[in-house]
Amino acid sequence: MLRINAGRLHRRLDDLAQIGALEDGGVRRLAFSDADRAGRDFVEEWMRDLGLTIHVDALGNIAGVRDGAEDGPAVWIGSHTDSVGRAGRFDGTLGVLAALEAVQTLDDEGVTTRRPVGVVSFVNEEGNRYAPGMMGSTYVADMISLEDARAATGTDGSTLGDELDRTGMAGSDNLRALPVHAFVELHIEQGPVLEGEGTTIGVVESVQGITWHQFTLAGESNHAGVTPMDTRRDAGYVAVAIATHVRQLGQTIERQRATVGALSVEPGFTNIIPDEALLRVDLRNPDADRLNEARERLIEFAEMAASGEHVGLTHEQLSWIDPVQFNAEVVGAVESAADALGYSHRRMVSGAGHDAQQMAAVAPSAMIFVPSVGGISHNPDEFTRPEDVEAGANVLLHAMLQLAEKA
Amino acid sequence: MLRINAGRLHRRLDDLAQIGALEDGGVRRLAFSDADRAGRDFVEEWMRDLGLTIHVDALGNIAGVRDGAEDGPAVWIGSHTDSVGRAGRFDGTLGVLAALEAVQTLDDEGVTTRRPVGVVSFVNEEGNRYAPGMMGSTYVADMISLEDARAATGTDGSTLGDELDRTGMAGSDNLRALPVHAFVELHIEQGPVLEGEGTTIGVVESVQGITWHQFTLAGESNHAGVTPMDTRRDAGYVAVAIATHVRQLGQTIERQRATVGALSVEPGFTNIIPDEALLRVDLRNPDADRLNEARERLIEFAEMAASGEHVGLTHEQLSWIDPVQFNAEVVGAVESAADALGYSHRRMVSGAGHDAQQMAAVAPSAMIFVPSVGGISHNPDEFTRPEDVEAGANVLLHAMLQLAEKA
Repeated sequence: MLRINAGRLHRRLDDLAQIGALEDGGVRRLAFSDADRAGRDFVEEWMRDLGLTIHVDALGNIAGVRDGAEDGPAVWIGSHTDSVGRAGRFDGTLGVLAALEAVQTLDDEGVTTRRPVGVVSFVNEEGNRYAPGMMGSTYVADMISLEDARAATGTDGSTLGDELDRTGMAGSDNLRALPVHAFVELHIEQGPVLEGEGTTIGVVESVQGITWHQFTLAGESNHAGVTPMDTRRDAGYVAVAIATHVRQLGQTIERQRATVGALSVEPGFTNIIPDEALLRVDLRNPDADRLNEARERLIEFAEMAASGEHVGLTHEQLSWIDPVQFNAEVVGAVESAADALGYSHRRMVSGAGHDAQQMAAVAPSAMIFVPSVGGISHNPDEFTRPEDVEAGANVLLHAMLQLAEKA
Repeated sequence: MLRINAGRLHRRLDDLAQIGALEDGGVRRLAFSDADRAGRDFVEEWMRDLGLTIHVDALGNIAGVRDGAEDGPAVWIGSHTDSVGRAGRFDGTLGVLAALEAVQTLDDEGVTTRRPVGVVSFVNEEGNRYAPGMMGSTYVADMISLEDARAATGTDGSTLGDELDRTGMAGSDNLRALPVHAFVELHIEQGPVLEGEGTTIGVVESVQGITWHQFTLAGESNHAGVTPMDTRRDAGYVAVAIATHVRQLGQTIERQRATVGALSVEPGFTNIIPDEALLRVDLRNPDADRLNEARERLIEFAEMAASGEHVGLTHEQLSWIDPVQFNAEVVGAVESAADALGYSHRRMVSGAGHDAQQMAAVAPSAMIFVPSVGGISHNPDEFTRPEDVEAGANVLLHAMLQLAEKA
């Protein structure tokens, strides 16, 4: 049974980790920075060595296609090589380099597939410098215009289009025009589930829906010593009550995750009852109805809590992204590959967003997860064990082979 | 029955409000600023017009003494004329100008008292520029040294001693050496109780005890989407749970006030579980045992909440000030004065700290409160109705007369 070359893959992972390396072992390849460009050059060079037909689109997405015995839609595999500001070396990178390794394995073993195979690396998946994230795959899925993407303002004040031009990352090809039979993305889990239960492969069958909500409260600042408890209009207390309810949503709605990431009160003096408070809430659920239930319960509770304290409430829905169900056939290909290779596996839901969820609008898609030690990600301490890296790449190879079919 | 001249008192209040006036009608006479010095000059000039014997101590506290028929301890009346950064025109000021008005009324009516009467204005009651507040009365009560007071660093980076020298506010007299028979302070309530129930005079029989507590929580930042609810170490959630408990303390312990004035979480991104949180708690109770109970329940709950979430907890007690019980005889003098004048009155506790609570260590003391419209204070909108200003000054006059005794 065909296996990837683990030593070669690890050398490539080490080499790419040198590009944008931080002193503490992490990496920083923010979208459309010089380091991001150098990372893409590294990928492009391997594609060239493999004799792939390279396509670069106007936003800098790159695809290298290996011919099949027949023309027609290709099986795409890949991920992204941009990173957050203080990243580890696996997020995204693993999916691109394992895809290249899988193609090289086909070459090494002289395998011809019926369908073409494309290795793809999407730009700006992280969205750390320019929002929104998953921008490259969103562009390929025709859900953002080139104009809107180029107009994005960076957290550093730069404009995406200017940096795209400066780094020369744009090309003149149109990835939207390439027909795709299926898409498979290998990624680290970024969560503790696989490592916690000792499972090697996550067969990702869906991506959670996400909705973000911001609440601002306007009460009355008063002296903490002289204001009776029952006449207070404490904006901070209402924020605290809402935050408590958020945790309850996560505990009472099936498969619900509910987080208060931002919470602050003004003026912030110990002896002054806060007259202003702000909180931001992140709700996720793989089921759209349950996610909507969480959202409605949250808003209803917030209105009740504010009204009970005679505090003004402003609510803003910052985002709503529907859950994505991956394609049963592609999910099945991943599962049977893991099974055939003898790796322990489980079906699971992705908690984070990934390029595959945008590609699901273009072609049947699925994902493969491998364990993240301690569930740590977006951090220089991010780590996936060598044997799990190898297992994930082998599953990617065989899922791709099953979808592309040996000629 | 003797009455103060309300028109004259209001003209003086208007005149003093011009010193350090803000454009929006408020005042700013931060301790040891030029405006503070000008405010004290205004008071000193009225003392001089009244022929009082003026004493200024090394910290700038000023007392003007009117002779009694006999020598011996004087009845002191007064408050302070420094202000917070954006203040109203009544806080402190009323107590000093009403005291001068009461003495002038004695002159107008040719009244001689058996005991001397001293009008006092303490420096730096607010502590807004230089901590701690109530500094002038604390110095007179011999609870802070001149060296420590002079060494205080201002929020503007200045040193108190330098500003004291620059403004020339210090004198060479020793107020600690002047014998005091009793002290009465008229002040605005700064809370909503009197106005809320339509009562004119608050007979203040005690000042709440105060204790401040700071909690810092250290959890683990993780991805909001991929981290299961039951494995989180959410520092923000623990802060929220403690804040909820603080409100419960205020609702379940008799006469307890409990406030979270400061609350923040880090890193503050919507999709990141906070790994750091800070909250500051203000607890007040007129009963020392109950205040201690609140403190112990707070700390116990915080430890339990942190431990339940596997979050590290650091607790720091920032302050503990015992409750002060005013002297029964002086409280009685205030009450019978209000009664004799036909004003509605009630006994009450001061929620805020005042110079009288430090003077209680020097001599039998009590306070008179008049209503604050809407309970608003430390704000240009601070307002006490003219008829209440007049009523408070009349009660001060008669309480003073009862304690000093007509000759």
